[in-house]
Amino acid sequence: MEELKKAVYEANMDLPRYGLVTFTWGNVSGIDRESGLFVIKPSGVEYDQLTPEDMVVMDLDGNKIEGSYRPSSDTATHLELYRAFPKIGGIVHTHSSYATSWAQAGRGIPCYGTTHADYMYGEIPCVRCLTPEEIAEAYEQNTGRLIVEEFVRMEKDPMAVPAVLCKNHGPFTWGKDAREAVHNAVVLEEVAKMACRTESINPQVKPAPQELQDKHYYRKHGANAYYGQEKH
Amino acid sequence: MEELKKAVYEANMDLPRYGLVTFTWGNVSGIDRESGLFVIKPSGVEYDQLTPEDMVVMDLDGNKIEGSYRPSSDTATHLELYRAFPKIGGIVHTHSSYATSWAQAGRGIPCYGTTHADYMYGEIPCVRCLTPEEIAEAYEQNTGRLIVEEFVRMEKDPMAVPAVLCKNHGPFTWGKDAREAVHNAVVLEEVAKMACRTESINPQVKPAPQELQDKHYYRKHGANAYYGQEKH
Amino acid sequence: MEELKKAVYEANMDLPRYGLVTFTWGNVSGIDRESGLFVIKPSGVEYDQLTPEDMVVMDLDGNKIEGSYRPSSDTATHLELYRAFPKIGGIVHTHSSYATSWAQAGRGIPCYGTTHADYMYGEIPCVRCLTPEEIAEAYEQNTGRLIVEEFVRMEKDPMAVPAVLCKNHGPFTWGKDAREAVHNAVVLEEVAKMACRTESINPQVKPAPQELQDKHYYRKHGANAYYGQEKH
Amino acid sequence: MEELKKAVYEANMDLPRYGLVTFTWGNVSGIDRESGLFVIKPSGVEYDQLTPEDMVVMDLDGNKIEGSYRPSSDTATHLELYRAFPKIGGIVHTHSSYATSWAQAGRGIPCYGTTHADYMYGEIPCVRCLTPEEIAEAYEQNTGRLIVEEFVRMEKDPMAVPAVLCKNHGPFTWGKDAREAVHNAVVLEEVAKMACRTESINPQVKPAPQELQDKHYYRKHGANAYYGQEKH
Repeated sequence: MEELKKAVYEANMDLPRYGLVTFTWGNVSGIDRESGLFVIKPSGVEYDQLTPEDMVVMDLDGNKIEGSYRPSSDTATHLELYRAFPKIGGIVHTHSSYATSWAQAGRGIPCYGTTHADYMYGEIPCVRCLTPEEIAEAYEQNTGRLIVEEFVRMEKDPMAVPAVLCKNHGPFTWGKDAREAVHNAVVLEEVAKMACRTESINPQVKPAPQELQDKHYYRKHGANAYYGQEKH
Repeated sequence: MEELKKAVYEANMDLPRYGLVTFTWGNVSGIDRESGLFVIKPSGVEYDQLTPEDMVVMDLDGNKIEGSYRPSSDTATHLELYRAFPKIGGIVHTHSSYATSWAQAGRGIPCYGTTHADYMYGEIPCVRCLTPEEIAEAYEQNTGRLIVEEFVRMEKDPMAVPAVLCKNHGPFTWGKDAREAVHNAVVLEEVAKMACRTESINPQVKPAPQELQDKHYYRKHGANAYYGQEKH
Repeated sequence: MEELKKAVYEANMDLPRYGLVTFTWGNVSGIDRESGLFVIKPSGVEYDQLTPEDMVVMDLDGNKIEGSYRPSSDTATHLELYRAFPKIGGIVHTHSSYATSWAQAGRGIPCYGTTHADYMYGEIPCVRCLTPEEIAEAYEQNTGRLIVEEFVRMEKDPMAVPAVLCKNHGPFTWGKDAREAVHNAVVLEEVAKMACRTESINPQVKPAPQELQDKHYYRKHGANAYYGQEKH
Repeated sequence: MEELKKAVYEANMDLPRYGLVTFTWGNVSGIDRESGLFVIKPSGVEYDQLTPEDMVVMDLDGNKIEGSYRPSSDTATHLELYRAFPKIGGIVHTHSSYATSWAQAGRGIPCYGTTHADYMYGEIPCVRCLTPEEIAEAYEQNTGRLIVEEFVRMEKDPMAVPAVLCKNHGPFTWGKDAREAVHNAVVLEEVAKMACRTESINPQVKPAPQELQDKHYYRKHGANAYYGQEKH
């Protein structure tokens, strides 16, 4: 658990390093699937005052197990995603500028090229706003539930599409651990930036051909991947 | 008063740190409500030569109480805001790039998402240009008067909307002290940047639903706020 | 002359510091009006290898007086401007990104606000491309002549409008010395950036009212200026 | 060969220094024409862990001659370019943001000004996507073949146009050695950025007049070049 707290702390500190957060506008969590406990950033604590000891430990029923601070206000969203997506080990929420602009615009990000296809298979979806009832009842939890419902409805594999935009809010990304979730948050921001510029350069642009998307995605993922070095 | 001068000095130095000013294009002030004195940056002094001792002390009648320099040329605007908005303790003026671009465009910034709603309730207004008579008579003072008049007319609470754009000029922000006013200047610039990109991505975009704006604003403000840590 | 070489060297080194140049895409000169000699950056020398001794000294007939390097390839343009504008003491040429984009777009930069009006009076003009004959005959010299002709034709005072765009090429700025010319190059880039964003936010935007332009320009310039500290 | 490995290592490290790559999204190679061997970055290795010893040595038949890592997944593209363009000594591939946005938009970059003309003669072409068959058969090799075919078809001299965009993918640049290829990658990104902004400022903009393009290109290239210092 101490190791996980350290890893989640490091992943949180990567957010300002990569320019993904202003002030406290972001949080990272990571889960230990054996014990069913996850570690998350405390709410509203400045990054330059954060220490590994400040991380909050939670169980999947939403009980705080350890930590002197309140957990991130988005904890209930993380929890729903961990419950529904059993292969993910880390989650990131930011208000990174371009990804949030797509979320505010209420549009999913089309796959315009191989930078996108290398990491995320197909369009990155933008889910609707919650209804007034959903907001009033349990805002953060219902945000997580909506993401899960939409991935089921769209038949999207969360490991192949490790990112989502929440309309008028911002992005969540995930991965096999907290570090990979941050990596995907960086990729998402780059992809969101280039998609915005791509449409400015050519307003009639179409998504990349499916066979090119497949080629790049499977060059990096699955049994026939040949990008990078062999893992030992 | 020495403490306030130091705090206002630090808040001024945060403007270049956050990338909000070029050269001397900005100023911060802070007020001590008990004595009715406020401290403000001297006019046209470079940030890298500024010291806490250079800060100018003024009273609310516009008399210089202490300081070897002339106060900021925008002092009369600060003064009007302190007089009319009794809860504010600090004011910032910058020419930060995106907020100034909205001011030049003559448009208020619609609330497109939760980043905005977390800090500022509803549209950030853009007030009209002064008339030739208002400019000739008392430019800086009339700028402050116009802001106050417009907030009254629009029934906006200056603590809920701690920012304004002056058409063809630039933004003012405020807060409970100089530090919070700078914080709001950073928020405004981020919000202005994302609103510009949001409209580029979706020219038909509408503001965020009112219930989402309410949810996020009241998650951080008022009696039922639950963001961050409890204050002791 | 050694002092001028040092000042021009420092002004040249400010270009990469302010992010105005990539590689060697820029040059600064400064003139000593008494001797009629001016100092300019050598052509194509990397900024990180530049020393004050590398500066080239020229007279106003275009003769090299001192220096082991060739002067900037734009020297003949500088020379024409020094000859025609007797009050200027320094000149800068860059390919700074936004100013160059306006030059490539073939448009002058309208005065959309006070950031612009504080330094430059009215629209920053964009002069036409040279004709094939003008290019073939004496490209750099004719560039300078065209700028001068256009300022005369438009009845613009070069001290009130210390910047120009050359169509499909880039900006020149000037000032009372090399340092002020660099200052104006920074202002121009900021103004060009904000004007581009302003038009994106409001495609129907109009220039700032004339009385506001006058107010801000004369707040900083002329007998009734009151911005900054009194000069002793 | 050790010298070439060091030079190619340094050129690779310049990519993050110039802000051209995120994570491992880029690679540089350099060739020794005498031995016919080229050196290239290993696939998927992080820049901050890269050493000159990690560089992979290949021959022009695609055999690995030296190195403990797999070469870049784009090696076959580099190989085709080295075979077909005998004067080039270095190649760069990146996903730099603006150049990639033009590639995703499927448009070549028109020559809008002298920044472009100083380095690259005429439009920087964007070649089509590969067909499903070309992708399935030999994706990276066919990418190189397509670039070569298109340069032949368009009668473009690869030394005068040292850059290409691959639709929905990103740019390749080259030069007389690895260092110059990186230099051209920086130029391409700047030119791509300014062309995007130029079209935003003036949607009806036309390319720069041919005589201006000629003037600037030949000011820096060929027998009558007079930019920079004489080479000894």
